[in-house]
Amino acid sequence: VPEVVLAEHKSTEQLVALASHCVQQEKNVFMTRVSQAKADALYESLPGQVFVHAGSRTVYVGHEPLALNAEQEPRIAIVAAGTSDVPVVAEIEQTLLYLGEGSRRYVDVGVAGLWRLTELAEELSANSVIIAVAGMEGALFSVLAGLVPAPVIAVPVSVGYGVASGGNVALQSALSSCAPGIAVVNIDNGFGAAALAVKMLGILQAHG
Amino acid sequence: VPEVVLAEHKSTEQLVALASHCVQQEKNVFMTRVSQAKADALYESLPGQVFVHAGSRTVYVGHEPLALNAEQEPRIAIVAAGTSDVPVVAEIEQTLLYLGEGSRRYVDVGVAGLWRLTELAEELSANSVIIAVAGMEGALFSVLAGLVPAPVIAVPVSVGYGVASGGNVALQSALSSCAPGIAVVNIDNGFGAAALAVKMLGILQAHG
Amino acid sequence: VPEVVLAEHKSTEQLVALASHCVQQEKNVFMTRVSQAKADALYESLPGQVFVHAGSRTVYVGHEPLALNAEQEPRIAIVAAGTSDVPVVAEIEQTLLYLGEGSRRYVDVGVAGLWRLTELAEELSANSVIIAVAGMEGALFSVLAGLVPAPVIAVPVSVGYGVASGGNVALQSALSSCAPGIAVVNIDNGFGAAALAVKMLGILQAHG
Amino acid sequence: VPEVVLAEHKSTEQLVALASHCVQQEKNVFMTRVSQAKADALYESLPGQVFVHAGSRTVYVGHEPLALNAEQEPRIAIVAAGTSDVPVVAEIEQTLLYLGEGSRRYVDVGVAGLWRLTELAEELSANSVIIAVAGMEGALFSVLAGLVPAPVIAVPVSVGYGVASGGNVALQSALSSCAPGIAVVNIDNGFGAAALAVKMLGILQAHG
Amino acid sequence: VPEVVLAEHKSTEQLVALASHCVQQEKNVFMTRVSQAKADALYESLPGQVFVHAGSRTVYVGHEPLALNAEQEPRIAIVAAGTSDVPVVAEIEQTLLYLGEGSRRYVDVGVAGLWRLTELAEELSANSVIIAVAGMEGALFSVLAGLVPAPVIAVPVSVGYGVASGGNVALQSALSSCAPGIAVVNIDNGFGAAALAVKMLGILQAHG
Amino acid sequence: VPEVVLAEHKSTEQLVALASHCVQQEKNVFMTRVSQAKADALYESLPGQVFVHAGSRTVYVGHEPLALNAEQEPRIAIVAAGTSDVPVVAEIEQTLLYLGEGSRRYVDVGVAGLWRLTELAEELSANSVIIAVAGMEGALFSVLAGLVPAPVIAVPVSVGYGVASGGNVALQSALSSCAPGIAVVNIDNGFGAAALAVKMLGILQAHG
Amino acid sequence: VPEVVLAEHKSTEQLVALASHCVQQEKNVFMTRVSQAKADALYESLPGQVFVHAGSRTVYVGHEPLALNAEQEPRIAIVAAGTSDVPVVAEIEQTLLYLGEGSRRYVDVGVAGLWRLTELAEELSANSVIIAVAGMEGALFSVLAGLVPAPVIAVPVSVGYGVASGGNVALQSALSSCAPGIAVVNIDNGFGAAALAVKMLGILQAHG
Amino acid sequence: VPEVVLAEHKSTEQLVALASHCVQQEKNVFMTRVSQAKADALYESLPGQVFVHAGSRTVYVGHEPLALNAEQEPRIAIVAAGTSDVPVVAEIEQTLLYLGEGSRRYVDVGVAGLWRLTELAEELSANSVIIAVAGMEGALFSVLAGLVPAPVIAVPVSVGYGVASGGNVALQSALSSCAPGIAVVNIDNGFGAAALAVKMLGILQAHG
Repeated sequence: VPEVVLAEHKSTEQLVALASHCVQQEKNVFMTRVSQAKADALYESLPGQVFVHAGSRTVYVGHEPLALNAEQEPRIAIVAAGTSDVPVVAEIEQTLLYLGEGSRRYVDVGVAGLWRLTELAEELSANSVIIAVAGMEGALFSVLAGLVPAPVIAVPVSVGYGVASGGNVALQSALSSCAPGIAVVNIDNGFGAAALAVKMLGILQAHG
Repeated sequence: VPEVVLAEHKSTEQLVALASHCVQQEKNVFMTRVSQAKADALYESLPGQVFVHAGSRTVYVGHEPLALNAEQEPRIAIVAAGTSDVPVVAEIEQTLLYLGEGSRRYVDVGVAGLWRLTELAEELSANSVIIAVAGMEGALFSVLAGLVPAPVIAVPVSVGYGVASGGNVALQSALSSCAPGIAVVNIDNGFGAAALAVKMLGILQAHG
Repeated sequence: VPEVVLAEHKSTEQLVALASHCVQQEKNVFMTRVSQAKADALYESLPGQVFVHAGSRTVYVGHEPLALNAEQEPRIAIVAAGTSDVPVVAEIEQTLLYLGEGSRRYVDVGVAGLWRLTELAEELSANSVIIAVAGMEGALFSVLAGLVPAPVIAVPVSVGYGVASGGNVALQSALSSCAPGIAVVNIDNGFGAAALAVKMLGILQAHG
Repeated sequence: VPEVVLAEHKSTEQLVALASHCVQQEKNVFMTRVSQAKADALYESLPGQVFVHAGSRTVYVGHEPLALNAEQEPRIAIVAAGTSDVPVVAEIEQTLLYLGEGSRRYVDVGVAGLWRLTELAEELSANSVIIAVAGMEGALFSVLAGLVPAPVIAVPVSVGYGVASGGNVALQSALSSCAPGIAVVNIDNGFGAAALAVKMLGILQAHG
Repeated sequence: VPEVVLAEHKSTEQLVALASHCVQQEKNVFMTRVSQAKADALYESLPGQVFVHAGSRTVYVGHEPLALNAEQEPRIAIVAAGTSDVPVVAEIEQTLLYLGEGSRRYVDVGVAGLWRLTELAEELSANSVIIAVAGMEGALFSVLAGLVPAPVIAVPVSVGYGVASGGNVALQSALSSCAPGIAVVNIDNGFGAAALAVKMLGILQAHG
Repeated sequence: VPEVVLAEHKSTEQLVALASHCVQQEKNVFMTRVSQAKADALYESLPGQVFVHAGSRTVYVGHEPLALNAEQEPRIAIVAAGTSDVPVVAEIEQTLLYLGEGSRRYVDVGVAGLWRLTELAEELSANSVIIAVAGMEGALFSVLAGLVPAPVIAVPVSVGYGVASGGNVALQSALSSCAPGIAVVNIDNGFGAAALAVKMLGILQAHG
Repeated sequence: VPEVVLAEHKSTEQLVALASHCVQQEKNVFMTRVSQAKADALYESLPGQVFVHAGSRTVYVGHEPLALNAEQEPRIAIVAAGTSDVPVVAEIEQTLLYLGEGSRRYVDVGVAGLWRLTELAEELSANSVIIAVAGMEGALFSVLAGLVPAPVIAVPVSVGYGVASGGNVALQSALSSCAPGIAVVNIDNGFGAAALAVKMLGILQAHG
Repeated sequence: VPEVVLAEHKSTEQLVALASHCVQQEKNVFMTRVSQAKADALYESLPGQVFVHAGSRTVYVGHEPLALNAEQEPRIAIVAAGTSDVPVVAEIEQTLLYLGEGSRRYVDVGVAGLWRLTELAEELSANSVIIAVAGMEGALFSVLAGLVPAPVIAVPVSVGYGVASGGNVALQSALSSCAPGIAVVNIDNGFGAAALAVKMLGILQAHG
């Protein structure tokens, strides 16, 4: 089982101790929701073994940076409504890398510009799993689930203001969708979406 | 100013008294959210002057039933996501008739079957105002507002279950939409949507 | 695409019309959340072609009742916390049958009797997908996801009282779980859970 | 279609890249909810082409600052309950300018001083669209809609404290108003109100 | 101290026992929120000593029905937005009678017809206390408090639908009002409003 | 009518302009919820005419500081549950001074030490109005209203954590109290409580 | 471990099957939240072995009715604010009997009549555990916890209207109480309160 | 009665005054939720008499630091789901010390690693009271209460994000648990949990 740590509510001291322990035991570890200050402290405490990925707020402790297996064709597509969703997209990508999967990213594919979505329908349909990332009203989830045959993992994002602030409207839209086949995870839970996608692909491995 | 009554929280006695008063004063009156029992009592108390429209839960008190001006081309389109939304659609249609406007109805135009919506885009674009009616996650509001140039009045409907029950998710989706130009009214407020549409058309009259 | 209808907010007249239309077009159709009265009306209107499954509140319109393909080994396990969850379990089973999949049912496997769960861990792990059904505090979701490698679809159920009434606590527990790999659907959405499970198995077909 | 960007959840890097792209393509772009720091960065990165309007937190990227067409008589009135609402009023004005419309501003026209409102009734009635801006309990929306014939766009504002904090009470008051003809937009959504007003005026153009 | 009973959550047996006990002790008692069935049971169990007031859902147990002291000029005005609010108005009137105070009733004085309110301003200002009764968006509270010098007791009413259902919007509007001097009580709490008004008048007695 | 300003959502520039305008017109003005920075700016902009009261976050613009009329016996008691409530108590006191009323302060009179409350019952009963100030669960409101004959104005305070954070529990306790005669105002609304108390005392003046 | 069943969301068929199974296995079982119809069906299906306690909505299946051990002095006091709380008090008493404990009941000991509470303080202090039962604003919990040394189990009750409806205010008051030593259970959870009390007394047994 | 102060909403000046008063009266006092800045000010104002425990945000004012009675075998176990919960665990430990009780700490005993919990079951069962500390979905509460005979005090913790942020899901899970015998306290209320545990142990003392 890969080691994963949610850094948000842990102190810098706790994180450094944990990373040191893993290094001593020759285990790697992946941390999400790491603030810049905590990432810096980790980087300085274990030189050469801490790889910080700022855009996704993740940290990987191991022998070399996470990288894609170049020969493996990605089986997962990540579709995001706008550039505001990019940090969550990046968390998904990094988590997938840590779990051994590649992915393709499609950003700025919102419902307002419906033609981009319909144009992409065929290309997206070639994937085994779709991860959809959206804040605001989350209409993307329903539209995508109606366009592609693969299961859609909906990741509501805490962008938006007024009633949309905090991501709750996007979450509830995903849960209420009239399009069947949507798997919902918590708001901003890029890590969980990636883990679920890998579990879905595991169905394949188990029977392959 | 046309006389309108929200019957829901008024007693049968209050409604009959009010209708009788209007008849005596030779004024017509339009009532919404009238239960079957209240409609029956009104019908019996003022024979020949009460016109009950069961499907919309509305009652019209006047000299003859509400009817469309046959020569006037409708300027308002009503688009509904599913057959569950039909009672609200009917309340909109009856209210528009009472206010002197016709309309065209497009039901079962949900986001799951996106092609129907895109096929209709041109026909819908010929209208001055679009009234969109949807429950569940209300993705229809955003998609429609991206497809047609006219202002879209969003009527969230209290169909759905779980988090969607009561229509609140559809309401918040309409408010949070990233597509500009959506005018939101209260849940199930078919009357209000119709009144707003007529006010919008009034811009035309005022300047014409 | 199989035809499916959410009957809850539709009138008896609308449902009968819809079923008749399907019969004329020689298409079958599956309805969920059908009240006893609506089911009776459907049964009487189309003799011999309407199959009512009372325990799940579903109706199937077709040539013969839904039945399991006897040769196919089920790949889906349904685990429920208590007997109060049985109606939702039954909706899942009937939907799976309609979509061509069998399933195995494990009821009364709550967190209070932890040993039953741990005893079942190996047997459950043989399945490709686990559907977990629970109301109240929904602790079953987290415990199951920690015990089995397959993806867990969490169906919160609207049983419980006080703060738990309506199923919202179970829903939020599923979304907040610290165990990765949980796919959440709306409260009482047995149909959606079944549809998602079949989509997940579709990953297999697509690559097999 | 005019290019518009919600800057709030986008990084400075994303905004600068986007503005540069627009300049290269010789397109102008309008940004809302721009923080002071982001506005400064934009201003410095594209000298002479970025026009910052601090009071409304908007930025316009183009050849010359936004300005009113001096010959066009404004058809839109903006009525605000108090000076706390001025930033939202300014966002509406700037957006209208970007979309080619002028407006007249009436600030400090609250319900507590009812006489100011009734005095203004006739002057306001000469407008095609009224945009009402209010926080706290939002009584202004109902009172205005009863006084003027034009459609009223209600913009709830996130001023207030206790139960009123965040603008939710004003929003719900607007939605619940017993005065018909109110079009509600999201809390603080000055941009959306302006866009809706222009769409309403578009009814006129389309038929004129 | 006058004896008062909230009948809503008490069984018929409990209410009859309580009324009998009061009669035996030669004390009168006043009950609110009494259902028709409970009122009937009380009426039959203590012939000649139970006075049912159906319109207000109150019951008085005593020697003769509650009546106004004809010589006393009322010092309390009750202003209600619409006929839907009449049951709460009646509860206030009956409670005031029980506590020895008369009142004047002004119904259908809503914000939509502002002129009626302004016309009444002088007459209302002659009262020591104003009790305002309104559901929906509760704009009446703010407008009244700006028009009259007396303290305004706001009674939110559970009429309305959608976001207004249950009376919560009216309650929060009353609490958020920018007009100072509003005393808020619970939704539908006609009894509490009357008791508070009498306590306010008690200031007068204590110093007179 | 005394001039009062809620400073919270107004900019420093707006407040200074407003204060200068009042000074020019020889009117005084009272501001609540003034931050330290805004108070400093006001103090410097109008030397000798701005009186800052830090403990209550209020500012008075006038000829000399607010002071109690020494000969007038206070008719209002302010009872607070704990020292955390002192800032709101101070806002009430300053507002009362501005409106011409004195008051007596009783702090740390919580429900946990019931004997202090019962000891004070007689002394408190000599007042015309009681203003009760409490956060957390707000039990003080109910207990006080049962102990004293005067009307009790309940001011919920935003102290507390977990479910009590924001003051909402105290507010709802005040509204739900089984003790009649409680007048509720918004959370932290010390100004409103003072204004209401003065309006209540106005009943006396009007009839005296 | 005693067998306990929450009957609310179980069908009559499920309950009868369960009771029959227990009888066959010579085990007794205790059911809570049993509707009258379900209780009747149980009573008729297993003559002489089903004991229905209507006032508490509980059913006991066993050889003879539940009864108090006459020689054991009760160690638990149940204090309730009013007669509306009696059904929950009865559920607590019956559950305690089933678990082998007696109790003393103190009803109508509300905060409004503070003297009754203070009079009882000494008598209540002789108990090992206090179970407090209250709806509305739940001030009883805080006052009791300040008066007696024993741990107080707070049972919020779903009586009340407006903001108090459903029991949520009482629940949140209990959680927010400034008086330490309050153990909170779910709304209306009389069973859980009794079970917790018995577990607390178990501390005694374990060490005695 | 030991003196305890919730420092969160009190000013530094208030806390220093209070501590000085206690020292003068030769009483000790225990403060919770003390920020670093406030703790420093206390430490400097009363040299040698203020003992700051940073990890728990508590301050003890007395003659010597709090310490465990070495001869007393702890009767309370504190079980926490993860390292993020450590600050609340520390507040519980310090409060217990102040109240004269020791405790044993078990951290990182989450539901995801079920085997650790089942392994500890016997050791934990030797305690008189279990205090369970968890955020996120709070499944730990239900699982623990099913494993050990002692009463479980549930302390929900405000760690988590999305729907879990603020600790509300953990709180509601604890209240909704199907495992009987759980005593719930407010979110992050380590102090209250410790006080309740000591009251429970007091049952023992009182009867011993």
